Amino acid sequence: MIRVGIVGATGYAGAEIAGILLSHPEAQVVFYGSKSYAGQRFSDIFGNFRGLIEEKYDICREPDLSVMAEECDVIFTATPQGYLSGVLTEEILSKVKIIDLSADYRLKDIEVYKQWYKGIERNDDPGLLAEAVYGLCEVNREDIKTARLIANPGCFTTCSILTAYPLVAEGLIDPDTLIIDAKSGTSGAGRGAKLPNLFCEVNESVKPYGVTTHRHTPEIEEQLGYANEKAGGDGSPILINFTPHLIAMQRGILATEYASLQEVTLPTGKTVLPDDAMIQETYEKYYSDEKFIRLLGAGVWPETRWVEGSNFTDIGFKVDPRTHRVVMAGALDNLVKGAAGQAVQNMNLLAALPETMGLMKAPIFP
Amino acid sequence: MIRVGIVGATGYAGAEIAGILLSHPEAQVVFYGSKSYAGQRFSDIFGNFRGLIEEKYDICREPDLSVMAEECDVIFTATPQGYLSGVLTEEILSKVKIIDLSADYRLKDIEVYKQWYKGIERNDDPGLLAEAVYGLCEVNREDIKTARLIANPGCFTTCSILTAYPLVAEGLIDPDTLIIDAKSGTSGAGRGAKLPNLFCEVNESVKPYGVTTHRHTPEIEEQLGYANEKAGGDGSPILINFTPHLIAMQRGILATEYASLQEVTLPTGKTVLPDDAMIQETYEKYYSDEKFIRLLGAGVWPETRWVEGSNFTDIGFKVDPRTHRVVMAGALDNLVKGAAGQAVQNMNLLAALPETMGLMKAPIFP
Amino acid sequence: MIRVGIVGATGYAGAEIAGILLSHPEAQVVFYGSKSYAGQRFSDIFGNFRGLIEEKYDICREPDLSVMAEECDVIFTATPQGYLSGVLTEEILSKVKIIDLSADYRLKDIEVYKQWYKGIERNDDPGLLAEAVYGLCEVNREDIKTARLIANPGCFTTCSILTAYPLVAEGLIDPDTLIIDAKSGTSGAGRGAKLPNLFCEVNESVKPYGVTTHRHTPEIEEQLGYANEKAGGDGSPILINFTPHLIAMQRGILATEYASLQEVTLPTGKTVLPDDAMIQETYEKYYSDEKFIRLLGAGVWPETRWVEGSNFTDIGFKVDPRTHRVVMAGALDNLVKGAAGQAVQNMNLLAALPETMGLMKAPIFP
Amino acid sequence: MIRVGIVGATGYAGAEIAGILLSHPEAQVVFYGSKSYAGQRFSDIFGNFRGLIEEKYDICREPDLSVMAEECDVIFTATPQGYLSGVLTEEILSKVKIIDLSADYRLKDIEVYKQWYKGIERNDDPGLLAEAVYGLCEVNREDIKTARLIANPGCFTTCSILTAYPLVAEGLIDPDTLIIDAKSGTSGAGRGAKLPNLFCEVNESVKPYGVTTHRHTPEIEEQLGYANEKAGGDGSPILINFTPHLIAMQRGILATEYASLQEVTLPTGKTVLPDDAMIQETYEKYYSDEKFIRLLGAGVWPETRWVEGSNFTDIGFKVDPRTHRVVMAGALDNLVKGAAGQAVQNMNLLAALPETMGLMKAPIFP
Repeated sequence: MIRVGIVGATGYAGAEIAGILLSHPEAQVVFYGSKSYAGQRFSDIFGNFRGLIEEKYDICREPDLSVMAEECDVIFTATPQGYLSGVLTEEILSKVKIIDLSADYRLKDIEVYKQWYKGIERNDDPGLLAEAVYGLCEVNREDIKTARLIANPGCFTTCSILTAYPLVAEGLIDPDTLIIDAKSGTSGAGRGAKLPNLFCEVNESVKPYGVTTHRHTPEIEEQLGYANEKAGGDGSPILINFTPHLIAMQRGILATEYASLQEVTLPTGKTVLPDDAMIQETYEKYYSDEKFIRLLGAGVWPETRWVEGSNFTDIGFKVDPRTHRVVMAGALDNLVKGAAGQAVQNMNLLAALPETMGLMKAPIFP
Repeated sequence: MIRVGIVGATGYAGAEIAGILLSHPEAQVVFYGSKSYAGQRFSDIFGNFRGLIEEKYDICREPDLSVMAEECDVIFTATPQGYLSGVLTEEILSKVKIIDLSADYRLKDIEVYKQWYKGIERNDDPGLLAEAVYGLCEVNREDIKTARLIANPGCFTTCSILTAYPLVAEGLIDPDTLIIDAKSGTSGAGRGAKLPNLFCEVNESVKPYGVTTHRHTPEIEEQLGYANEKAGGDGSPILINFTPHLIAMQRGILATEYASLQEVTLPTGKTVLPDDAMIQETYEKYYSDEKFIRLLGAGVWPETRWVEGSNFTDIGFKVDPRTHRVVMAGALDNLVKGAAGQAVQNMNLLAALPETMGLMKAPIFP
Repeated sequence: MIRVGIVGATGYAGAEIAGILLSHPEAQVVFYGSKSYAGQRFSDIFGNFRGLIEEKYDICREPDLSVMAEECDVIFTATPQGYLSGVLTEEILSKVKIIDLSADYRLKDIEVYKQWYKGIERNDDPGLLAEAVYGLCEVNREDIKTARLIANPGCFTTCSILTAYPLVAEGLIDPDTLIIDAKSGTSGAGRGAKLPNLFCEVNESVKPYGVTTHRHTPEIEEQLGYANEKAGGDGSPILINFTPHLIAMQRGILATEYASLQEVTLPTGKTVLPDDAMIQETYEKYYSDEKFIRLLGAGVWPETRWVEGSNFTDIGFKVDPRTHRVVMAGALDNLVKGAAGQAVQNMNLLAALPETMGLMKAPIFP
Repeated sequence: MIRVGIVGATGYAGAEIAGILLSHPEAQVVFYGSKSYAGQRFSDIFGNFRGLIEEKYDICREPDLSVMAEECDVIFTATPQGYLSGVLTEEILSKVKIIDLSADYRLKDIEVYKQWYKGIERNDDPGLLAEAVYGLCEVNREDIKTARLIANPGCFTTCSILTAYPLVAEGLIDPDTLIIDAKSGTSGAGRGAKLPNLFCEVNESVKPYGVTTHRHTPEIEEQLGYANEKAGGDGSPILINFTPHLIAMQRGILATEYASLQEVTLPTGKTVLPDDAMIQETYEKYYSDEKFIRLLGAGVWPETRWVEGSNFTDIGFKVDPRTHRVVMAGALDNLVKGAAGQAVQNMNLLAALPETMGLMKAPIFP
């Protein structure tokens, strides 16, 4: 049985990890770390867990990585930016594996981090940054298996990358034309008591935010840069426009993506623009064995209600012959595949367990 | 492996049964019955199930109890009032167990049925009516185990009865003063394309409906009449006011209940009005071993968000010393404990499986 | 032109006053008082007002009653409990009329206030308390016209009292049996950045709160006690159970009320229980000339969507011949008739303007 | 007093016209046309209007343009596609002015109509099509004033065009790169009893629809083609990707638009890419006198909550120096500026009334 610790257990993502692991046959949360609620019963903070948590563990504790490293085999850090890099040491990492849900180890280039995460104090340890594996399971599976430190991808990032990855990697679209317009439920904004997240401020409204400056942008750009390398690019980040929107729902992200098609050379030597069939084939080449990606086919569109509560990413697309663009859309539950679910998927890979263990829940509807 | 058939699989309650059974280790849905969608893939209607249903079963079929009786061990009928009584025969019931989510077999007195279900055509078979067991598991557990035909209780009913039952049964409240004010999410109204259930009609509103005439009233009155018999009553139905309200959420029922306290005689011979401690004790006497009832204690109130997606009923209460009343409140997920979950709980009892099998999911939040 | 000042202009109720007065032909907000946002443009805080507020007034100012008394003819205080009684003086009141949306001057008995508003520091000035007029326009219209200090009623209170008032005043119901179960949108909880009011905490849930202890209880009890006096009671407060519930909508209150019918003596000398016709007649006796009360008739139920954005209170009812109770329900917009609209109605009365001036907006739907 | 008739008065847009005109000093609805509800009281269908409609007009009547032409001065047709062109005659138009909220007369090229509105039966009258004036007030104001037949623009269209118009007309952006990603509340889907618009289907979800095929596309393309003519284009339609999304709110549209910047030549002869200041200046050139357009400035983003219930369009934008694109966003209330409000604005222009008459309502929040 894997002994699990969570730092930030009383945030939405942290609590979602706790919820997923309740029915995981090989893992047990033994440490609910929470600065704000230390000393209180975890199941009093999240009443949904009443009666479901073993009495002896049902207490929020002051998070301390050194202590946790002794009691846990895996630690999930669902914490503010800068926390983990400020406390992580080689000694801790020699005792425990860490899956970090913050952005501390996602970007390989520390200068890019500093540019996008202005105002965040963090410790730069080039060694740890180099060692950390970007935990997008469908892309980096093999590296994840042997990692000690996993940088769990952002919610928008996971959705945005998975939706475009095969088409970039196979050179079907011009990565410089990629535009990502994303819509997120409000749980993505966290559980802090902030005025803009009040019911009356969010409900019956939609707004863009972080336009041209959202921090998930460089993460998408770096990863799709790697994809582009497969298509002959130089591996440096691509440049995109990424615009998130806040909408009045609890869970779910939908990323609608636009890109100009690029001519591809057929075996016959003829060059053509990709059509729906070619794009479908490309998606299947990458994802047909993936348990958590559901390809809907050309002209069938994902809806967040069909993935809510699950670890699935649903993907649809359509070529527009008028504009020679392809429109793609991906949907996932930001707290599951966009955070806690993918984190557990990473844990399963780390622990050499079946990748889907504890994660094959059907989406809940309505 | 129990072979399960569902009539009405494409309604919200029917699909919820399908969803619950996806992770039930001893049951397998082999027949998705749906008049409206016969011939279509079930997972095309409910996109959340895409990729999760075995190919050979993933088809909606015209429901026919005779055919189903051959292919199934248990049939759930999530159907309009009057359907089951119109087609059920002794022969069918000799081959298959039936758990009916409609009201056809809930009321023992056919005259009461006719009075409250005006306009519903139904077949009166006194034998079947007498045989049917009211499937409120926490109350009728033993009878359910050996039944062939289960009348699965209504959603409001389950919540209303469980909340008041111990206090009525122990004579702590005057049943004639019981007033139940209930609030329900919109999934309780079903998946029919009806104008009053459109998003724009339901959202940002709350309304009472069926005031003094809602069909769950006599069901509550009959069952609490039986409870009252334990406290020295004659077993005939009590008389209550029950008012349901439609609110803008998907799942969940909250029943707020009011009743005047009755004096009880202590072992010392002294008569007193019950206080919070006495009421807590009474709830515990009935429910402390129940896996699906969570007692919150005096002054701690249930919220539907803490039970969403689960089979739990949460119950809170408080004595008002000013008015000598007790206010009680119960919360459940109308599609789970209020319909599909309780139906599966009944199936588990019927099949001599652990009562909680497939049902111990944590509520999902947010 | 009445010069208006608002203290607490950046709360929901304060801003609603500002919004209503934008189209009021005889009043002009000249002072937007806000401690938290002093120095910022009002229309930057409430973007709906962009471009609609005269440049010179569009600034939040530190509220100071002495300053405001010089610049304003009427001041609305939409402030926390205890604020107004702490700063109000005879001198201020000699210069300006005040309409207070807090509870400071609603309860005539200071001991009752202290019992229900535990923890609130307030200044007791028996003279001001005695002078203040309870601003429920439909009941106290004449007294309001000549008042200097108006205690604007609470949102639940307005809805609860108006719904029951005629039946209590005419002795048709037993006031001791009155139970009020109310449902409120979330704007009633104010604009403070509090965790329980976050979108993800409120949405998809319903909960009771303040059960047996909500502060609007004694206000209802006092006012219905006065009503009861008309029916032969002694004028002391009645005793009720009042239970508010928080639901996932922005605006709106629905109060569902239950009471046992009392026999009334007909002109013929015969005593009978009131029926629907008699109750309808009683409502009409009190309300048929009221512009802001809409009587829906027996068995027609109010829904908050039909009053949203307006100053109306809609009222429906039905006698239950089985239980000899009447079920009543009233609906209003908590920010309008439950707060800002009624406050402006009071201002109109104070200023000898037509009572409906600036208030005859149709409810907005959907 | 303008006598107004509405065909389709019981749809959301039709009822919104009725609501707006309730407080319009120079217009009076005298004919509520509704096929589905003929014979019923209008205020029984839309309970918000109870008590607000003059008794003699408060009845839904079978719509008949010939009859209405006698009784009305202006007719609004809020009807399904194909209705108006099927019944409109020169005789009718000689007696009454018509403002059509359907798409029948929006596209000048009937072949384009047939291509996008497949399956819609309509009557082609080239004369009427040529005569009809596209009722986008801010663009076609002068033509509208003398028109007999107004084609009121679509909701997405109004928002999309107004947001991009100045930048296209001044050549600041490459119109071939324009991508419009729009989000709409559910009232845009109409009041028909359709399963996809049920509360439980819409809530807690977001989905794209009509991707590459939505009928508002050619309308945007045609009008922005005219804008492009001002910048030296040939006036033929531009080609765009337009993707609408359905979100869980009642009212509101947000259009997020992306386009590559085009070099412009400065008076100095130097060519530069436009920056935020230049774009702001361009917007002001077109809109600074517009009463219903609010320019928020660079980096300030519209939110639908700030326009709800009003006739405003709020517009924000930002240049992305990394990608040399500009991101624009516009927000409006789909039932007001996107339908009924703009229709009344057109009526005001037709009738030589002040353009803002009856329309200067502040947005309602929360």
